[in-house]
Amino acid sequence: MTFTEKVAAIVEAHHSLLCIGLDSDVDKLPVGVNQLTFNKAIIDATHDIVAAYKPNTAFYEALGAEGIETLKAICEYIGQVCPEVPILLDAKRADIGNTNLGYVQFAYDYLGADAITLHPYLGREALEPFLERADKGAIVLCRTSNPGAGEFQDRYIDGHKLYEHVAKMVATDWNGNGNCMLVVGATYPDEAAAIRQIVGDDMWFLVPGVGAQGGDVEQLMKAAQNSRGDGLLISSSRDIIFASSGTDFAEAARKRAESLRDEINTYRKG
Amino acid sequence: MTFTEKVAAIVEAHHSLLCIGLDSDVDKLPVGVNQLTFNKAIIDATHDIVAAYKPNTAFYEALGAEGIETLKAICEYIGQVCPEVPILLDAKRADIGNTNLGYVQFAYDYLGADAITLHPYLGREALEPFLERADKGAIVLCRTSNPGAGEFQDRYIDGHKLYEHVAKMVATDWNGNGNCMLVVGATYPDEAAAIRQIVGDDMWFLVPGVGAQGGDVEQLMKAAQNSRGDGLLISSSRDIIFASSGTDFAEAARKRAESLRDEINTYRKG
Repeated sequence: MTFTEKVAAIVEAHHSLLCIGLDSDVDKLPVGVNQLTFNKAIIDATHDIVAAYKPNTAFYEALGAEGIETLKAICEYIGQVCPEVPILLDAKRADIGNTNLGYVQFAYDYLGADAITLHPYLGREALEPFLERADKGAIVLCRTSNPGAGEFQDRYIDGHKLYEHVAKMVATDWNGNGNCMLVVGATYPDEAAAIRQIVGDDMWFLVPGVGAQGGDVEQLMKAAQNSRGDGLLISSSRDIIFASSGTDFAEAARKRAESLRDEINTYRKG
Repeated sequence: MTFTEKVAAIVEAHHSLLCIGLDSDVDKLPVGVNQLTFNKAIIDATHDIVAAYKPNTAFYEALGAEGIETLKAICEYIGQVCPEVPILLDAKRADIGNTNLGYVQFAYDYLGADAITLHPYLGREALEPFLERADKGAIVLCRTSNPGAGEFQDRYIDGHKLYEHVAKMVATDWNGNGNCMLVVGATYPDEAAAIRQIVGDDMWFLVPGVGAQGGDVEQLMKAAQNSRGDGLLISSSRDIIFASSGTDFAEAARKRAESLRDEINTYRKG
């Protein structure tokens, strides 16, 4: 099964476009709960209603080697409890060709992730070690969710913005193995619509920015879903995993996740 | 002492613009030598003739938590043996604002690095957690050394190439704390000259790409040094650290490093 087939299968099976961001900032954990215990509880409580998990490496690297061990244990736990749910490693890497082999080894062999997020600035040639792994996903930053995303991404090149060029190149040139996705921020629905227009129905978007960052689900769904009513993995992190800071944190996370999954489904076509 | 003062001081003290890339790919280590022992021997043999060390995280992350521990031990060793030599963490990170705090913690607090390399794609606003650390260096990818670097970096925006816009924004807007540098590949001397023209004398460049990647020292020096005969940290990795695969690897690395340092100095102004 290819990466894209794995995504399509879980979206169908769980009737869900929801991705939970496992951004377990240690300063926000409930009292007496460590990072691993916290994530296991979140996974136990939500794995039947999600389409993906997205751990962001920064929250684990902050703790050094110990954090990396925790991240590995979390990925292994997902592999045991719900191997059908893809792990999207939000690592935002990209180096020159050979050096990327180290990140390939880290993400796919060591952690067992299904996909990794990547910066486009170095171009396709540099990213070949990721792109050629046909069994794994290469999720390229296209239009990011942050307030200052437009500084370079919105600059015009030959009448089109840089992020539109990135979308076009990924769709038409980088995606020979059918394993590419794009990162498209929920905070910019007009840009998301423009990208859907460029890449057509078959490209999946990883969409951060709903919830704490202010992205609106209805606007996003109208702008960016494909004609089949999917094509999006909508990621929420803090709003779900820190829904409660009490001992009921996992239960509260499930309620919030169910609610967001249902809200998203309300706006799906077909 | 600020980061830039630390760089200027070591360049003066060691009469060297040479940066050694500690890219200790485990598949290339001499028989029976582990990553930590290897790097300690390289550091022992070269610390009095370099201006910086540049460990690339990919070669350590490839080994997971164990690799991160090794990387930390290497950084600590540099701090013991030659605290005056800056550690440039070649991590090529960049996430949205708050998330970058995790990488700040990893690079500066956990590893004790002096600077980190960063992708510019998300814009200044996202990178503030790095930029506001006035005591540390933010080294922004501008024109990278890889063959396919031009795919986006060379596209024209208002008559200037994207990498030129990055250079200009970093120099005029991002560098309020005077702690920014630019990554400029030695493989593109014309582009390096254009960037020097844009940013003036006071911005330091981190220059990978001499040696194995094909960059020519004479061309680079003529194109990119500033009017004071410095402004460049020229990085070489494989050519130096793997100069010999025998038991004399450290001695061979020193010879190669001395030779490159001297070749670089031949072309310095003044």
